[in-house]
Amino acid sequence: MGLIYYNGEYINDNIAISPDDRGYQFGDGIYEVVRVYEGRLFTAEAHFERLLRSASEIQIELASTVDDYIAICERLIAENRVQDGLIYVQVTRGIAKRNHIFPESTEPVTLIYSYDSARPVQGMEEGVKVITLEDIRWLRCDIKSLNLLGNVLAKQQAHIADAVEAVQVRDGIVTEGASSNVFIIKDGTLYTHPANHLILNGITRKVIKRCAEELNIPFVEQAFTPDALYDADEVIISSTSLEVTPVTQIDDQVMAIGPLTRKLQQAFKEKIYPAS
Amino acid sequence: MGLIYYNGEYINDNIAISPDDRGYQFGDGIYEVVRVYEGRLFTAEAHFERLLRSASEIQIELASTVDDYIAICERLIAENRVQDGLIYVQVTRGIAKRNHIFPESTEPVTLIYSYDSARPVQGMEEGVKVITLEDIRWLRCDIKSLNLLGNVLAKQQAHIADAVEAVQVRDGIVTEGASSNVFIIKDGTLYTHPANHLILNGITRKVIKRCAEELNIPFVEQAFTPDALYDADEVIISSTSLEVTPVTQIDDQVMAIGPLTRKLQQAFKEKIYPAS
Repeated sequence: MGLIYYNGEYINDNIAISPDDRGYQFGDGIYEVVRVYEGRLFTAEAHFERLLRSASEIQIELASTVDDYIAICERLIAENRVQDGLIYVQVTRGIAKRNHIFPESTEPVTLIYSYDSARPVQGMEEGVKVITLEDIRWLRCDIKSLNLLGNVLAKQQAHIADAVEAVQVRDGIVTEGASSNVFIIKDGTLYTHPANHLILNGITRKVIKRCAEELNIPFVEQAFTPDALYDADEVIISSTSLEVTPVTQIDDQVMAIGPLTRKLQQAFKEKIYPAS
Repeated sequence: MGLIYYNGEYINDNIAISPDDRGYQFGDGIYEVVRVYEGRLFTAEAHFERLLRSASEIQIELASTVDDYIAICERLIAENRVQDGLIYVQVTRGIAKRNHIFPESTEPVTLIYSYDSARPVQGMEEGVKVITLEDIRWLRCDIKSLNLLGNVLAKQQAHIADAVEAVQVRDGIVTEGASSNVFIIKDGTLYTHPANHLILNGITRKVIKRCAEELNIPFVEQAFTPDALYDADEVIISSTSLEVTPVTQIDDQVMAIGPLTRKLQQAFKEKIYPAS
């Protein structure tokens, strides 16, 4: 992992998590994954604002600010010489004898590390397969928490089906992928699930919204059915690591990559490399 | 913690969890809490059979058998001189670089420790307060997984309301407590939610079922509404640590402790101390 930030210290060695860390016994924590392009953070403010919101929603009191987190990331990028990579940030409620109730006096445990990760060029160019399955997760998917078992099981089912992502369906409505947001394009309009408690409000989703506005593509936050997904002109999945990835197969149905997807990809790329 | 079992070894020191343990980053694991009375395990077979089932449901392959787990527990009880206590058993999918998809080659990580815990005599005698709230958890509550954030948040809300437990309601139906099963007694019949994907099939719940049969109290696995809860003659919550605990207040409504609750408590006590 190279240099790691752990609880206020920069460590170049193995770190030891306590078995009493509430992240380990309850998944009682939150996280973010932040993109690094050419050694520079991308949309980091938005990620750390979301981290603060997630913490607030589950009543973890953070002493650090957005700027604090960004300064840590920049040091890790420099020391670990990250060019294209990702930074993983996790905060748990802290260490305490096992009890569901929040401990009275414990400090949050923060873990931040970086790793190299290339842009998903092949998937963006050629498209990917997704499957659909039932969304069995909890009803606060807007919180980016460590309770990821539902996402893990969905992702594994996709993997077994030779797919990159599992598009989840709750009560007849497409919500989101196991680790991505889902968009359809129909008759020139871009649709995606509203940012409520059933989905994570993706940072890449927000960038795509801005790109759509700049391209004069109508952007509508409106839930849609699996039938509308199959019937779409174009389908996209997005995330910090997937960027704007076109879907070329949903279950057994083959889809084409359309012109608006290509325009959104180009606009997104211009956000990453504003000088180019 | 005294002597701890960790991954095949008995350790009398601090143990170090890896930050790449999937339990830490995804809550990708399962657990059990087993009761010890007077130095003897109580219903341990049922607990470890459920552990094996939970593992199987999320496709963690365990090399250990029920007997293996019981042997570990007995050694911890002996070495730590546990009289009345609890044994915590946790198994995660293992250690791997972060990726939702199951790692190809990793061994499960097992953590087992014991601690002293007295029987909940006061609550059983005097009854406890519970609150009702919306069940926001995932749809596989039958798996005793480490994804406990929903339970933690519910339990904390109860704690703030000076209550012992949060009785959860999904789609107008009482499911279970945040860490207990819920029973009502009405006109001499005992009702509890069916053991499907919406609740954990409690081991104590099973013992209560057996007690009810022996006492000729009709036991009906049938979902009921919050109105039926308020309208019940008697209300009980049960778990490994709560045993058979009567509810004397639901939200603002005061309840009496009834005669069938006392009979069930007595029958349960005879299961604990069969010689007495």
